[in-house]
Amino acid sequence: MKPLIEEKIESLYAEMVETRRYLHMHPELSHQEVHTPEFIAQQLENIGIEVRRNVGGRGVVGTIHGRLPGKTIAFRADFDALPITDQKEVAYKSTVPGVMHACGHDGHTAALLAFAKAMVSIKDQLPGTIVLIHQFGEEVAPGGAQAMIADGCLEGVDAIYGAHLQSKMESGNVFVRDGFLQASEDTLKIVVRGYGTHGAEPHTGVDPILAASHIMIALQSIVSRNADPLKELVVSIGKFHAGDADNAIPSEAVLEGTIRVFDPELRKLATERVQAIAENVARAMGAEAEVTIEAGYISLWNHPEAVEVVRRAATQAIGEERVVETEPIMPVEDFAYFTQERPGAYFFVGAKMADERLSYPHHHEKFDFDERAMLVAAKMFAALYFEEQNMRTESIS
Amino acid sequence: MKPLIEEKIESLYAEMVETRRYLHMHPELSHQEVHTPEFIAQQLENIGIEVRRNVGGRGVVGTIHGRLPGKTIAFRADFDALPITDQKEVAYKSTVPGVMHACGHDGHTAALLAFAKAMVSIKDQLPGTIVLIHQFGEEVAPGGAQAMIADGCLEGVDAIYGAHLQSKMESGNVFVRDGFLQASEDTLKIVVRGYGTHGAEPHTGVDPILAASHIMIALQSIVSRNADPLKELVVSIGKFHAGDADNAIPSEAVLEGTIRVFDPELRKLATERVQAIAENVARAMGAEAEVTIEAGYISLWNHPEAVEVVRRAATQAIGEERVVETEPIMPVEDFAYFTQERPGAYFFVGAKMADERLSYPHHHEKFDFDERAMLVAAKMFAALYFEEQNMRTESIS
Amino acid sequence: MKPLIEEKIESLYAEMVETRRYLHMHPELSHQEVHTPEFIAQQLENIGIEVRRNVGGRGVVGTIHGRLPGKTIAFRADFDALPITDQKEVAYKSTVPGVMHACGHDGHTAALLAFAKAMVSIKDQLPGTIVLIHQFGEEVAPGGAQAMIADGCLEGVDAIYGAHLQSKMESGNVFVRDGFLQASEDTLKIVVRGYGTHGAEPHTGVDPILAASHIMIALQSIVSRNADPLKELVVSIGKFHAGDADNAIPSEAVLEGTIRVFDPELRKLATERVQAIAENVARAMGAEAEVTIEAGYISLWNHPEAVEVVRRAATQAIGEERVVETEPIMPVEDFAYFTQERPGAYFFVGAKMADERLSYPHHHEKFDFDERAMLVAAKMFAALYFEEQNMRTESIS
Amino acid sequence: MKPLIEEKIESLYAEMVETRRYLHMHPELSHQEVHTPEFIAQQLENIGIEVRRNVGGRGVVGTIHGRLPGKTIAFRADFDALPITDQKEVAYKSTVPGVMHACGHDGHTAALLAFAKAMVSIKDQLPGTIVLIHQFGEEVAPGGAQAMIADGCLEGVDAIYGAHLQSKMESGNVFVRDGFLQASEDTLKIVVRGYGTHGAEPHTGVDPILAASHIMIALQSIVSRNADPLKELVVSIGKFHAGDADNAIPSEAVLEGTIRVFDPELRKLATERVQAIAENVARAMGAEAEVTIEAGYISLWNHPEAVEVVRRAATQAIGEERVVETEPIMPVEDFAYFTQERPGAYFFVGAKMADERLSYPHHHEKFDFDERAMLVAAKMFAALYFEEQNMRTESIS
Repeated sequence: MKPLIEEKIESLYAEMVETRRYLHMHPELSHQEVHTPEFIAQQLENIGIEVRRNVGGRGVVGTIHGRLPGKTIAFRADFDALPITDQKEVAYKSTVPGVMHACGHDGHTAALLAFAKAMVSIKDQLPGTIVLIHQFGEEVAPGGAQAMIADGCLEGVDAIYGAHLQSKMESGNVFVRDGFLQASEDTLKIVVRGYGTHGAEPHTGVDPILAASHIMIALQSIVSRNADPLKELVVSIGKFHAGDADNAIPSEAVLEGTIRVFDPELRKLATERVQAIAENVARAMGAEAEVTIEAGYISLWNHPEAVEVVRRAATQAIGEERVVETEPIMPVEDFAYFTQERPGAYFFVGAKMADERLSYPHHHEKFDFDERAMLVAAKMFAALYFEEQNMRTESIS
Repeated sequence: MKPLIEEKIESLYAEMVETRRYLHMHPELSHQEVHTPEFIAQQLENIGIEVRRNVGGRGVVGTIHGRLPGKTIAFRADFDALPITDQKEVAYKSTVPGVMHACGHDGHTAALLAFAKAMVSIKDQLPGTIVLIHQFGEEVAPGGAQAMIADGCLEGVDAIYGAHLQSKMESGNVFVRDGFLQASEDTLKIVVRGYGTHGAEPHTGVDPILAASHIMIALQSIVSRNADPLKELVVSIGKFHAGDADNAIPSEAVLEGTIRVFDPELRKLATERVQAIAENVARAMGAEAEVTIEAGYISLWNHPEAVEVVRRAATQAIGEERVVETEPIMPVEDFAYFTQERPGAYFFVGAKMADERLSYPHHHEKFDFDERAMLVAAKMFAALYFEEQNMRTESIS
Repeated sequence: MKPLIEEKIESLYAEMVETRRYLHMHPELSHQEVHTPEFIAQQLENIGIEVRRNVGGRGVVGTIHGRLPGKTIAFRADFDALPITDQKEVAYKSTVPGVMHACGHDGHTAALLAFAKAMVSIKDQLPGTIVLIHQFGEEVAPGGAQAMIADGCLEGVDAIYGAHLQSKMESGNVFVRDGFLQASEDTLKIVVRGYGTHGAEPHTGVDPILAASHIMIALQSIVSRNADPLKELVVSIGKFHAGDADNAIPSEAVLEGTIRVFDPELRKLATERVQAIAENVARAMGAEAEVTIEAGYISLWNHPEAVEVVRRAATQAIGEERVVETEPIMPVEDFAYFTQERPGAYFFVGAKMADERLSYPHHHEKFDFDERAMLVAAKMFAALYFEEQNMRTESIS
Repeated sequence: MKPLIEEKIESLYAEMVETRRYLHMHPELSHQEVHTPEFIAQQLENIGIEVRRNVGGRGVVGTIHGRLPGKTIAFRADFDALPITDQKEVAYKSTVPGVMHACGHDGHTAALLAFAKAMVSIKDQLPGTIVLIHQFGEEVAPGGAQAMIADGCLEGVDAIYGAHLQSKMESGNVFVRDGFLQASEDTLKIVVRGYGTHGAEPHTGVDPILAASHIMIALQSIVSRNADPLKELVVSIGKFHAGDADNAIPSEAVLEGTIRVFDPELRKLATERVQAIAENVARAMGAEAEVTIEAGYISLWNHPEAVEVVRRAATQAIGEERVVETEPIMPVEDFAYFTQERPGAYFFVGAKMADERLSYPHHHEKFDFDERAMLVAAKMFAALYFEEQNMRTESIS
């Protein structure tokens, strides 16, 4: 017989879908969220949950106090959207031009709200405290996590969990990993200063495009030569811009890129190498390079004991055969700051569309996900809470 | 005693300055000239010269028929201006925002008009025929020269001469050179197509910035390895643009540049090498390169016998000590098409400002020149005409 | 109370050291081993073990038949030495100029012989069959493993184990890993053919040094761009040779290197990329590249169930705290072919010298190891055998 | 009627050929010449010419004093051979293994000796003094020219001339040029020091091959970007050597090459750029570069007035139609030091084999030349002497 809590969550599925679609139609950019946090706060208040608004700026924190003594467990869902134009042909398409929930944060929010509603209804039978962290601004560093932590959202919290829907992973499965799960990020900018001149008289100037090209190529050696082959590192340049006229040597070329890595020491080495390569190669070509490296999110490290909790919870909620050990991924996630502060784990919930033709990567203009995955996420939150309180779900009646 | 023709030209100096300054205040962009050619045509008609308008589009051709039999000698002055904002502090500053005579074509035109006025006054004593070619659109290929030639401006012409004022050469001097004087130009565009992806997952895409950087560097070998060290060649890339986001590998990178060379065979080799390097390097990196090379002006070749005429004429007009043998220069000039069709020569007339602080390069927003150089140009035209007719200037009375 | 088998092995320690030092003083190069296999064969025969000589060429296989029914378990030790001059100051220094046991194979052999001696003494109490695989030519591909397998050394074998002493790992510990433990290797050679000429006239030739340099640099992109950052890959060029005179462009440049990787698909991709880069970059520079890739050893993959046996055996033999999970390493090992054919696992036995100053890497001319590690290896073989037979070591008396 | 002096020289042709072939069969390497200078000295003494041996080491200087007053004019022929194995099938093939007159110095010597014999026979009718400079060691810097000058060979000399037979130029012609005729040379060596390691563990070392490849490519920019396109420059690397094993990163890579240029300022710029590129690119890659640039011969500059004397002499000796204005060439020539000290000129004498199939470049193992060109060279020396003395050849009887 299915535990009551699961039944409760399942009965909230239609509402979850409705909430998600409402959010999907009204996306707001990172750090510009106004209606979304208010919507969430009201949803929580409507069901009698104590709410703190404007946490760390635009965050919302709800708290459910169980009647019995127990641990305080936090769950986090982010709610910001992306500057992408929705190109899907669905009824719930974004109504805001150029803004879109293309990463699934609408689903995270809907799942956490449904979980809250289910749990609040049984709070008299619950030990401990549930902290609902609705986070703003995950997509753009510095993200909301650090600000919300600074504003006290983890006070009294014993452990924290979060989930990300994944449009390219098998729907219905939960994906876990000990240790490093997502990379750190640094944003780099290299301004190469030469000396502009007529394209027909290169010897009277210093060609910054040539210097920058040499730098671009030499940067490859950081991964191919300086990094331990057993450690993951990516140094990518996404932008190279120089010059206004085909027949003039410009005075400047600008490279912009990203560094992704798990290991903090390798992160340090990589940034030092970028600096050394850019400055010395530029000098070799008679130019100068100014390197700016802006530290982004740290790498996300899952506490192995917390991952063990996730494994047990998932076995309980969806069955052992649906719990998959996964590889780390290079994208970043500011959930990293939560597990830096508290025991905890982040995991992935597979959400691939049943129709393969509708399966797009995250951040794609046609991104969508299998909404039933929200059910898995909400059930996982519940199962995790029970695991943490060392309590059987069947005990609820 | 000074020859009469020189005196006549000198007496026209104030008018020449006035004409030049009028044109300077009313510049028109290449291939958009309307008032300038009409102004020229009226000036010529006012002094009784037969005029053909709209030659090859916007050119003006005047013809002075001497009373005596003789050769037909053409002289060319260009009259288009540049998309540059005049920043000089002078009374005759451009009145057209963003357009400026920053290359001295106003001076060329004023000198040729003065020469015409002087010659028409003595046409009864003159052998042969003077063809005055006022050319439009020199600055932007395909220029006016080819169009005017196609429209018959060289019909019956035995030889052609032209002069360019030079703001960085000693005023009062004439600069000559046998053979190649100015380079040919090709404009090249290389579109490198990779496959865009997330910057953290380079292996799922093809990095066009890296491929284009390799191409940029490999292009250097055309000059350093493929060209005969004794032959002049420049391959410059002035623009390198790729990418919109620091954390995304873009799908395309675009290089744009210029090829300058004198020798036509080396020109051919250079364009073939650009093609081979771009296509094969791109292929090596898993990308594709599309190369477009737009042929610009051919290199300007002076007929040695015609340069000899220039030397003799200059010795006559300004004295042997003011005739300087010069090096070729890499900028282009569509006068090249005239000497491709007829014997002829192009030469430089030094026009450096007496006040060194006012001396700027051509195409500079503060460009100006010593107006007395127009007098040298006009006298040179006259002396050349007499030399070609094998006649002493002193014979005019 | 210590199990009898452990006591037996410990009592053989002095003999083990003597054997190892004898071998150390008389090293033989890979595929040239004559005395070593004969020495081993005689040692085995001396204690009544059935021996097959010249297996796969120079290999020796001994078989111990237990009296009871059971599984057939093979153990492998390699016995070839390296072309390195021994620079140690020890009594057992190599007596063969330029040849040295600089990788510990002498220790492997001594440990396996001691294990054999201990086991043969109790064969009446043993179930199953022990196969002792003394392998020649591990250091030089194609190695002895494939040849011995082809010659039947694995016939009837149910599982196989092997160990490598490691001079840089903590002595007394055993290091294990599921799945990939050691990389595959491909040896690559790129001959770049240009066209030789006088160094002062580069345009009359094709510069193969420049083309090869471009290839060298472009090869870096295989690791930095084409490989999944989560997968290990190394592409290294160890030799670049071209030219005889500083003032002559040579006609050829030769690059030689190595590819190391675990994942077979990435291995395929890497070799394809080397080919594509070399050929197309050479073509871009007007040269030609001939690429030869000689496949070396495959990557060594440990069967997880066999590794589990190793973990249990190690816990039994040396205690759980001495069993360490380890990272994979990039060097190659032809034990890989044994686990390709049979369930099995390879593991490392820490053998770092107590005196840090005497600790050198493998293949170093002063390489040496802590001889007590041989005791660990021999005990591990015994424990593995008992584990595989599902038998407690205490049962022997 | 042919002048007497020409007849005299023509009558010596068979002897000239004999001398040349004797020398061809007995070549001696640069700075190792023993028999050749002694042979020359004896030849001169045999015809009563005053000889100074061992000038500057191995040089020979003969002096012919005319009876009448006049200028002192020097003529120079070099006599060293090359470390090349003669592969021609001719009776006069080199008898010394690995040594060969593959540059025509044997012909230069034979022509100068014949000229001396002709002139000595008429010395009573001659004004001035003839200085015969037989130079050793031209092929290997520092060459014999500087040493002979230091030892006084130009004392009292008013002007100096020299000729080089050219196997690829039309036989019978004389080739002249004002100003720079041959390039300067610098020999460069770049030692790139990295840190050797196992090829499978690049991150534990510093790859000098990669650093040196980056340097090799960056060096191309000196010609393509730093040099005035109107000025000739070559930077070539002829040797790139690194590494002994395909699977080990070596600790060092060595580049060796040559710089050829006419303009002394560009020469300075080029060497500074080599230094800056090598040092900074190496540093960028974590390596170090040590650059050694050994200055070789300076560029050969012909005094225009002396070239005018060559033109007039050639017109006299072989007819105006055989006097060709030529381009400068990149190979070096230590005759440069003579024209640095005295007015003078170097010129080429065409010596292409009539049979095109036998026409090879200089320094080729099958090099040979049209021996009749020696006649032209000897006649040129005579005509130059008469021109310098301002005397008509017809005046001799």
